[in-house]
Amino acid sequence: MIQVVLLGAGNVANHFYKALKESEEVQVVQWYSRQLNKVLGVQNETRITDRLDTLLEADVYIMAVNDDAIHELSSQLPFQNRLVVHTSGSVGIHDLDKKLRRGVFYPLQTFTKDVDISFEKVPICIEALEKEDLVLLKTLAESIRAPHYKINTEQRQTLHVAAVFVNNFANQLYRIAHEITDAKQIPFDILKPLILETAQKIDTLSPYMAQTGPAKRDDKKTIKRHLKLLENNDHKQLYELLTQSIKKTHGRR
Amino acid sequence: MIQVVLLGAGNVANHFYKALKESEEVQVVQWYSRQLNKVLGVQNETRITDRLDTLLEADVYIMAVNDDAIHELSSQLPFQNRLVVHTSGSVGIHDLDKKLRRGVFYPLQTFTKDVDISFEKVPICIEALEKEDLVLLKTLAESIRAPHYKINTEQRQTLHVAAVFVNNFANQLYRIAHEITDAKQIPFDILKPLILETAQKIDTLSPYMAQTGPAKRDDKKTIKRHLKLLENNDHKQLYELLTQSIKKTHGRR
Repeated sequence: MIQVVLLGAGNVANHFYKALKESEEVQVVQWYSRQLNKVLGVQNETRITDRLDTLLEADVYIMAVNDDAIHELSSQLPFQNRLVVHTSGSVGIHDLDKKLRRGVFYPLQTFTKDVDISFEKVPICIEALEKEDLVLLKTLAESIRAPHYKINTEQRQTLHVAAVFVNNFANQLYRIAHEITDAKQIPFDILKPLILETAQKIDTLSPYMAQTGPAKRDDKKTIKRHLKLLENNDHKQLYELLTQSIKKTHGRR
Repeated sequence: MIQVVLLGAGNVANHFYKALKESEEVQVVQWYSRQLNKVLGVQNETRITDRLDTLLEADVYIMAVNDDAIHELSSQLPFQNRLVVHTSGSVGIHDLDKKLRRGVFYPLQTFTKDVDISFEKVPICIEALEKEDLVLLKTLAESIRAPHYKINTEQRQTLHVAAVFVNNFANQLYRIAHEITDAKQIPFDILKPLILETAQKIDTLSPYMAQTGPAKRDDKKTIKRHLKLLENNDHKQLYELLTQSIKKTHGRR
């Protein structure tokens, strides 16, 4: 049984808590939050605290707090030589105070407040300085049925940028499509099956092989007509840059 | 029973053929292709031809051919006053020869060769000049269980642009993420659950509400670090433009 203390009470911490609680191989022995009211709801399930000096002993401390708080919180921990992991995509493993056994347990997924997600769909990027800590983190990931990958800090920071492209930026393209359809009283719902199919397609096909459309074909007539149809200059600029990008990828310029 | 003649033998025509063949309310009475060898495989199931002068009578002729071929092929049809629809997102309904009863039956989806798709996930944009033709096209869509929407030519052309954003452009973002991860020996597979979740999220949340990340938070430190990490100038430029776009959408500039 892996004993866990959870620190932080935001979105990521809440999703971890639910997954850890359901695992039979893990015991959340305590949940810490600076604001106790945020964890009051679970006080019948586990111990809660807002004081670092009351932290219990555990096999691993999971710090799911803001990037900016990681270093300071880790240095305030009233113990040393215990395994403490942060859950950030961009913070280095050495940002954790060196009195600790340090590690990273970064879930590469977008979490929606109040919407449960199965951790089978949450790849965990694992990093640790000691081999036995790496083994423990793997076991921890497996205990919540999450796929896990050994990823060093540089790779993780790179993944974090890549995640911005496929998540925030892709979502902004959906937003732009929403603006474009709204302007012509077209229900955005028509596009949803296409959005889903586009994402599903790359499960079996590389994005390179999956590409279609006017930019890939270098279909100048359609591209010109599309640019004429776009009324918003920001949309036009993005259309041009992404079209160029596709053309370059597929050897069209 | 709706009698259909299918014209064209590309990807879209093939997907339509399979769906129509399976419907109990539709009979594909004939399949025309300029290149007969492309439809030889179904000669035991339906009549095939490569000669327009042998076209049989039908309730509707579905022209699933290249945009550029639509006008000419429609004018070559050796009959008038029958319902002929094209399946293009960008060609106007009036591009069809005016001797015909004209319509549009545009499937808004990305089709992959040799990969079957259920038409329940293929919204059909329907347009017709005559009311009774509209009714027939609705019935036809329902017979293959496709959701359908009455969409005029201007709206359809707008949808076609929006589709480029959510399909070709989103896929190019996946491609860029693939390039970014490959450069650091990171398996692209780690990103797949995030890609899927991002697409699924907007089924219940608007893209505006679903947005997260450094650009939305105007987290200058992370944005700066990401730009520094990106080694490819084209990736940098896209990162900047999409970050600006998100900031504008969420009132951050």
